[in-house]
Amino acid sequence: MTTTPLRALNRIELQVDLNYEVAGPGADFIFNVHAARTPSQSLSAERLVLTPAVVSRTHTDPGTGNRYLRVHAAPGTLQLSYAVTVDLMHRRSDPAQLDEVPIDQLPPEVLGYLYPSRYCQSDRLLTLASHEFGALKPGYARVQAIRDWVHGHATFTSHSTNSNTSALDTLIDRVGVCRDFAHLMIALCRAMSIPARYATGTDYGADPTLGPPDFQAYVEVYLGDGWYIFDPSGTAIPMGFVRFGTGRDAADVAFATFFGSVKSHRPTVRALAVEDATQGWVRPHHCTDALSTDGGPATAPGG
Amino acid sequence: MTTTPLRALNRIELQVDLNYEVAGPGADFIFNVHAARTPSQSLSAERLVLTPAVVSRTHTDPGTGNRYLRVHAAPGTLQLSYAVTVDLMHRRSDPAQLDEVPIDQLPPEVLGYLYPSRYCQSDRLLTLASHEFGALKPGYARVQAIRDWVHGHATFTSHSTNSNTSALDTLIDRVGVCRDFAHLMIALCRAMSIPARYATGTDYGADPTLGPPDFQAYVEVYLGDGWYIFDPSGTAIPMGFVRFGTGRDAADVAFATFFGSVKSHRPTVRALAVEDATQGWVRPHHCTDALSTDGGPATAPGG
Amino acid sequence: MTTTPLRALNRIELQVDLNYEVAGPGADFIFNVHAARTPSQSLSAERLVLTPAVVSRTHTDPGTGNRYLRVHAAPGTLQLSYAVTVDLMHRRSDPAQLDEVPIDQLPPEVLGYLYPSRYCQSDRLLTLASHEFGALKPGYARVQAIRDWVHGHATFTSHSTNSNTSALDTLIDRVGVCRDFAHLMIALCRAMSIPARYATGTDYGADPTLGPPDFQAYVEVYLGDGWYIFDPSGTAIPMGFVRFGTGRDAADVAFATFFGSVKSHRPTVRALAVEDATQGWVRPHHCTDALSTDGGPATAPGG
Amino acid sequence: MTTTPLRALNRIELQVDLNYEVAGPGADFIFNVHAARTPSQSLSAERLVLTPAVVSRTHTDPGTGNRYLRVHAAPGTLQLSYAVTVDLMHRRSDPAQLDEVPIDQLPPEVLGYLYPSRYCQSDRLLTLASHEFGALKPGYARVQAIRDWVHGHATFTSHSTNSNTSALDTLIDRVGVCRDFAHLMIALCRAMSIPARYATGTDYGADPTLGPPDFQAYVEVYLGDGWYIFDPSGTAIPMGFVRFGTGRDAADVAFATFFGSVKSHRPTVRALAVEDATQGWVRPHHCTDALSTDGGPATAPGG
Repeated sequence: MTTTPLRALNRIELQVDLNYEVAGPGADFIFNVHAARTPSQSLSAERLVLTPAVVSRTHTDPGTGNRYLRVHAAPGTLQLSYAVTVDLMHRRSDPAQLDEVPIDQLPPEVLGYLYPSRYCQSDRLLTLASHEFGALKPGYARVQAIRDWVHGHATFTSHSTNSNTSALDTLIDRVGVCRDFAHLMIALCRAMSIPARYATGTDYGADPTLGPPDFQAYVEVYLGDGWYIFDPSGTAIPMGFVRFGTGRDAADVAFATFFGSVKSHRPTVRALAVEDATQGWVRPHHCTDALSTDGGPATAPGG
Repeated sequence: MTTTPLRALNRIELQVDLNYEVAGPGADFIFNVHAARTPSQSLSAERLVLTPAVVSRTHTDPGTGNRYLRVHAAPGTLQLSYAVTVDLMHRRSDPAQLDEVPIDQLPPEVLGYLYPSRYCQSDRLLTLASHEFGALKPGYARVQAIRDWVHGHATFTSHSTNSNTSALDTLIDRVGVCRDFAHLMIALCRAMSIPARYATGTDYGADPTLGPPDFQAYVEVYLGDGWYIFDPSGTAIPMGFVRFGTGRDAADVAFATFFGSVKSHRPTVRALAVEDATQGWVRPHHCTDALSTDGGPATAPGG
Repeated sequence: MTTTPLRALNRIELQVDLNYEVAGPGADFIFNVHAARTPSQSLSAERLVLTPAVVSRTHTDPGTGNRYLRVHAAPGTLQLSYAVTVDLMHRRSDPAQLDEVPIDQLPPEVLGYLYPSRYCQSDRLLTLASHEFGALKPGYARVQAIRDWVHGHATFTSHSTNSNTSALDTLIDRVGVCRDFAHLMIALCRAMSIPARYATGTDYGADPTLGPPDFQAYVEVYLGDGWYIFDPSGTAIPMGFVRFGTGRDAADVAFATFFGSVKSHRPTVRALAVEDATQGWVRPHHCTDALSTDGGPATAPGG
Repeated sequence: MTTTPLRALNRIELQVDLNYEVAGPGADFIFNVHAARTPSQSLSAERLVLTPAVVSRTHTDPGTGNRYLRVHAAPGTLQLSYAVTVDLMHRRSDPAQLDEVPIDQLPPEVLGYLYPSRYCQSDRLLTLASHEFGALKPGYARVQAIRDWVHGHATFTSHSTNSNTSALDTLIDRVGVCRDFAHLMIALCRAMSIPARYATGTDYGADPTLGPPDFQAYVEVYLGDGWYIFDPSGTAIPMGFVRFGTGRDAADVAFATFFGSVKSHRPTVRALAVEDATQGWVRPHHCTDALSTDGGPATAPGG
């Protein structure tokens, strides 16, 4: 398999602001809004401020690299302001070279992504997936066909779903947001015995008619020797995604999980692409290469 | 908190036999039938034989200690025969001393067990759990109340459910097997922000009218400084459980997951308790102590 | 069984206003907003105005007495204004005298109300119902116990549910509006082989903190020799309900069903009780008698 | 619209045997195993025997013509043996002449078949149906396209589903029996605002590899001026269906509904076609005409 590694190609200046009203007697938060550090995503100028300046605990999950921030907040307002400069240098591969990996050859840590999860009930979809995709040639192209099927079988409609919505709902209701497209695609991949995981971060290049920049959910599928990005919602430019977390589904990597009575305001997300020819930084753009956030040796980019 | 550690109290001689018919073009299996090695569960005389003698790969998950065996089987018969001698020395604690742990003080690796999973849709049960258990004093006794509620709200009926059955189904249908009782209890604990996980292994002391010895699913809840065993099905003697695996729910730790066309015969499980006063080995029995498989310093047992 | 018939006891002046925006190419409406004519509910000064004055067709269902109005509306605004004076003279019975009716003695036209329907999946609730209510003495008191159980197992919260919400959802989510309480009670009655149907109309005496007067959904259960009113939501005064329709569940008697692209504004409902001692008209009030809208000979009221 | 009426074309000799074991304290049965009398289906030599000879009550539903038999059975065995000679003379129409009927022109008694029911949750399928069938030309051909879609999106597998299985399940699981195919097709028709109902009876000409002759569930859709037969399971010859009942879905017209503890044996169904050129009786066969059981003037058959 050929891989075209690269040095930093995209620089994103990211700013996230979250605002909550905490009712008595206080509430616990688990945030996953730190950008992840991965071989293809390096960070600088990172700053996270909580107002009021409550005690917080952070830890990085050794399996996924997700960075979690825990806060116990007293009643009143809680604001979280996060800024970071993100350099992206995806590993790029030729889709034609990316095969599905037989189950007995998968890395052990990947096996968990074969199983059904809360919002991705792949165990119900074995027959459907086999019927729709079983005759296709295994490999990246088949996963792309699953992505296209999901994209064609649901309509993106803001606020059409809620936090209980699962892949089965989306299959029936045929409507959703990026989270729902991701869950359905993951469920179908797993139903075909292809490991798939849920990734969160920030979008880039999304159609402004869909609203201001926002958090984004997308999919990573294990093919060849790593995890490759897919965007079944088709709303943004995958190359510009800044990754926060990966998990089995939205249950694992909500940008904010809270315990207690909390009113949340709409988050504010800003993602600016820095262009600088002298640095080799270009705007994220659609490309035909397969993109991985797993990293690998840096080299000159393709398309 | 007081803890009464102990040396090996129970010895179980375990024998598991699995039989499959694999159709063309072959199938992949992921087994989780090895007994786990934990501070409170030590193994000897372990032997696993596959017939035919196909190549297999084993790995131990670093997070859970689960031992997975992968096999790619050709069409025909596949038999797995596993035998092991298991010495159990549960850590025992006084239930009155076991508190629920505030979210901001939970060990990071425990957080994942707060979230909903495929068969434990705790996100749908927040109001129900709060209504039923919110007024109870936090601690082991509240978890015991959840266990008793589940035990009282469903009837154990062999073969009444299937592999798609979830906690929500059990709440409605009020019938199930040990797997279903476990899923419902886990979902309710998580809905109360109490970490709970699914444990599998072999039963011991189950009422023979429920059938021959079998695999068992039960619950571990994080309280005080460790994971404690609960048996919401009430069908067996928890002290005699041999643990195979722990996970988010049955999706993670099926004793056998297969990919391909496979016909499975009913598994055979034998669990013999060895009694020997000179060794201090007694038959597993019901006791009022809280039992943990996490281990801790060994000392003389309580009741 | 003793029955205390009565002459008109309550007079309600009712006014309903509905407003819609119809998109191209037009839409079809089926309204069920006419008050029903029943032996215990007589109408006068009835007036229904559609603006614009589109052609409409009305029919009265021979089985239920429901009055349906069909309209094909062109794009633009559609207003429906309905006013009626309703005289109520419920048949009243002593609850202690009302027995459940054996299945082989039910009137044929009642049998359909034993079966599960879209939002009342009684076929899933046989075990639950038997477990919760099977040991109670059959009769009105048992139905009242079902009503109280539903009332105690969910919390009334405006806008907490939608038109897809079913009895199973309410059992899990423990929250809803009058429609949801009604569906759950109906499902549980049917699971006990007690005929139950869904009734719609207008509320009266509802707590103003729940919002302005509104449409109301409640339950009628077949006991003794007729259908008796129950209000599991506990939000209003059953004696003041004006009945529009009865059916299997909300699917049958939505006050408005539309086909096409329609934006609906919040309906306006006004229900005024006329008090006049010379006529014998009193304000609707809570009472301990069982109330039936089936009618029967009119006579002096009880409590 | 042209209609080709006909005189009796097919004669079926039908024999149905049902066997139950009733546990204490007895059970109630509602049977719907009498063949219906319709303009296109006439009966002779009808005989129904219950053993033991318990008291029974029959009634014919005025809306549907369904014939219900109620029995209260004591503990012990209950056998029902039913025999009838059925003459079929379907109304036949040219599919090209059968239009969908605008909602405001539907006969009032047909409206109820637009609404969702227990196993046909059309309210969840509006988007899916519109996406799949919205662009097709309205009429019989569009309904046939819905029928073909259902037939192509699920696999007939005996015993793959149960009495709780609904159209949404079939859409996900892609497997079922004739009942499930019928429910899904009905739900999709209603989601397109096309009235559809569930019909039960006996199959004829089914592939013997699917098992012995059995009860059959199929679909009737309101088009033009009547209800027309569709068989989405594709397992039998529609011309040979003997109709027992029609309803909203399987909840309304189970061949046997029981209340109490009952063990049922597999029913025995025999359906013999009588061929007699002198009478004009031919074997039921596949044909391209649209077939209605509503009747109409009898005349010579087409293909």
